[in-house]
Amino acid sequence: MRAVDVIMNKRAGKELTREELAFFIGGYAAGEIPDYQVAAWAMAVFFQGMSPGETAALTEVMLKSGSVMDLSGIPGPFVDKHSTGGVGDKTSLILAPLAASLGIRDPMMSGRALGHTGGTLDKLDSIPGYRTSLGREEFREILKKGGFAMTGQTRDIVPADRLLYALRDVTGTVESVPLITASILSKKAAEGAEALVLDVKFGSGAFMKDPQAGEALARSLADTGAAMGKGIIALLTDMNEPLGRMVGNFLEVEESLDCLEGRGPADLMEVTLELAARMAVLGGKAGNSAEGRRLCEEALTGGKPRELFLQNIQNQGGDLNKFLELRGKYRSPFSAGIRASRGGYISRIDAWQVGRAGVLLGIGRNRTEDAVCPTAGVCLHKKGGDPVKEGDLIMTVWASGEAGLQGALPQLAGAVSYSETPPPERKLILKEISA
Amino acid sequence: MRAVDVIMNKRAGKELTREELAFFIGGYAAGEIPDYQVAAWAMAVFFQGMSPGETAALTEVMLKSGSVMDLSGIPGPFVDKHSTGGVGDKTSLILAPLAASLGIRDPMMSGRALGHTGGTLDKLDSIPGYRTSLGREEFREILKKGGFAMTGQTRDIVPADRLLYALRDVTGTVESVPLITASILSKKAAEGAEALVLDVKFGSGAFMKDPQAGEALARSLADTGAAMGKGIIALLTDMNEPLGRMVGNFLEVEESLDCLEGRGPADLMEVTLELAARMAVLGGKAGNSAEGRRLCEEALTGGKPRELFLQNIQNQGGDLNKFLELRGKYRSPFSAGIRASRGGYISRIDAWQVGRAGVLLGIGRNRTEDAVCPTAGVCLHKKGGDPVKEGDLIMTVWASGEAGLQGALPQLAGAVSYSETPPPERKLILKEISA
Repeated sequence: MRAVDVIMNKRAGKELTREELAFFIGGYAAGEIPDYQVAAWAMAVFFQGMSPGETAALTEVMLKSGSVMDLSGIPGPFVDKHSTGGVGDKTSLILAPLAASLGIRDPMMSGRALGHTGGTLDKLDSIPGYRTSLGREEFREILKKGGFAMTGQTRDIVPADRLLYALRDVTGTVESVPLITASILSKKAAEGAEALVLDVKFGSGAFMKDPQAGEALARSLADTGAAMGKGIIALLTDMNEPLGRMVGNFLEVEESLDCLEGRGPADLMEVTLELAARMAVLGGKAGNSAEGRRLCEEALTGGKPRELFLQNIQNQGGDLNKFLELRGKYRSPFSAGIRASRGGYISRIDAWQVGRAGVLLGIGRNRTEDAVCPTAGVCLHKKGGDPVKEGDLIMTVWASGEAGLQGALPQLAGAVSYSETPPPERKLILKEISA
Repeated sequence: MRAVDVIMNKRAGKELTREELAFFIGGYAAGEIPDYQVAAWAMAVFFQGMSPGETAALTEVMLKSGSVMDLSGIPGPFVDKHSTGGVGDKTSLILAPLAASLGIRDPMMSGRALGHTGGTLDKLDSIPGYRTSLGREEFREILKKGGFAMTGQTRDIVPADRLLYALRDVTGTVESVPLITASILSKKAAEGAEALVLDVKFGSGAFMKDPQAGEALARSLADTGAAMGKGIIALLTDMNEPLGRMVGNFLEVEESLDCLEGRGPADLMEVTLELAARMAVLGGKAGNSAEGRRLCEEALTGGKPRELFLQNIQNQGGDLNKFLELRGKYRSPFSAGIRASRGGYISRIDAWQVGRAGVLLGIGRNRTEDAVCPTAGVCLHKKGGDPVKEGDLIMTVWASGEAGLQGALPQLAGAVSYSETPPPERKLILKEISA
């Protein structure tokens, strides 16, 4: 077998065999097939696509490039959630203890903020003492004891994906549905998840701008999951406006706790509960999503998820007293307010612009090596649909420094659009997609 | 400007600007843009194509990566021919002295055999003493004195093409019309050709199997040449059967001399004269191709082209007496005949299979570093359309060794197809294409 023939078969639109993919991706991970051949192949995949069976084979081949988390001895079911990334999206922090309270274990491996999107690890890192780099044994223990554990990916988890992702980033081949699918599913399979709820976001603050592109990805993920024998339910959710009221690292941890205490904002609770309901279904705890949602609502009222969340902070080395003491106060001193420039209604607060401003504030990063600030962020006092009078406070803004604050303020003001009449209601969850 | 944006613009089907191409190809030649980005770009070009203006800009940018042959002080016009490659295609050896006899100078830089196709340099190298690596000054002198000079490309001629061609070869991006166009035209512009006749071959022994693909390339070459202000005429010619009777290095030099002596086979003479006629037109020696052909026929009768051919052998260091002495005798001792397995008509002798067998015989090579044998080859005593009786000698075969001979014989026998009735006549020249 020759690498160039694999490239040419894909170029011609042929379905690559499992043997071809194993040869090609395995050879790449082993350093035997060079970057330039993989780059040409990735561009051919961009144009020709892949069938669900082919995408499943690619996912499995990528999975085999590294080691898989051994969860033997820990009772399941193991169900995780993955989001394609958004602004203010802290659902993972709420879902993990909520699912755990129903007896579902979530072996969560998360990523960091990049570009306009936030990252679960950066949020968790804002908790004093909290450790997001767990060793394998530690991860197993915390998962067993607390029902969930949250860590970053270790280097031995799908090394082929790490190589391929870095290559795609510089060769204009990121936006390929089968390559995105294989990247997501291989990592989730490696962490030990048996089933997966996917939050596929569309809109200005999402990776996919239009719902059609989001749906295509959701469909590919569901079909590929099915071909791999993994239960997958995808929800297509709106990311035109930040989710919830808080955007920022510590701010989002706080808002997650608010949700677990029954005081979360409506949009965030809605998306969280609908995702949690599907986790309940996939974990065999509910026969349908309506029943799953009811179970989750009952669990929240009972207070167990909140207890598991606080317990996880301690399990992962966080200083719980310090955390509770900082709650509501841990804010950067470089602060300002954004006020309504006119009266009427807020028609929308644009997620993309808030996300981009967030990088200036110090929430996120443009390059993976940049540091982030735990105490920077935005609190949205108003959201789309709210009536306002001129001069009303719309946002409070905290930045890691004065320059970032001054750079972000006009962007944030520009993120707000107004209307005379109440804007049409946004449908938060557009569609459910499963195989 | 970022390389990844250039890739993504091409991926989106946008026309790249001259600045983008200069940045990208210039950066590649300078070692600043890595192979993997160029590989992804080449695959995007394969799928999205390029406009004639864009292809011309790419050609000029590639040309600028190296130095251009300085022909100042030598009287023109400078007209060259390029063939897309075939089996038994020795027209260059006949055309150069023929054009020179009309007062047209041909600054010819040629390539070597690869895969099933032969190479002009390997043929010339079979002449004892002949040197195909001329220095710049030597090339100029021989061109001035003899009307034509034949050499290989020096390393400073379009280095971007050498890099890009090697990369395309291993990344499945060879078959891209604009990339082929820019590769051909940049090298021909660098050697100093002002106008160009193109022999675009189609059929089993050609790079392009069907006439439509050949025509698309011919059209791209003509249009891009026009955008660069260079006169280009392309002929679309049939390469389903080897051209002429001889396939092999020294054998083809001999057959070229036969043609210059008025004893060439009909198909080879036809293609050669039609190409030569267009060189006469482009060089301003004839008003149209019919007149050009008449001039060429007269020149052949007069004997001047033969004289220039033999003179060139001496100009480039060849031992003319030795060459003439070896004529008809310089053959490898590993030899056999292929005889007709039945009676009737030869319907075709497949060029691809003869070309592939030629690699086993030692005529050609699979890898650029392999050596070739001057005295190996095939003489086709019969060709498509000829009547045969069972047992008639169809081919004489010479190989560089016994193993190659035994490997090639069944392939060569398999290249012959028979029919009961005379096969339909092959149209050798399908079309003339110019801007």
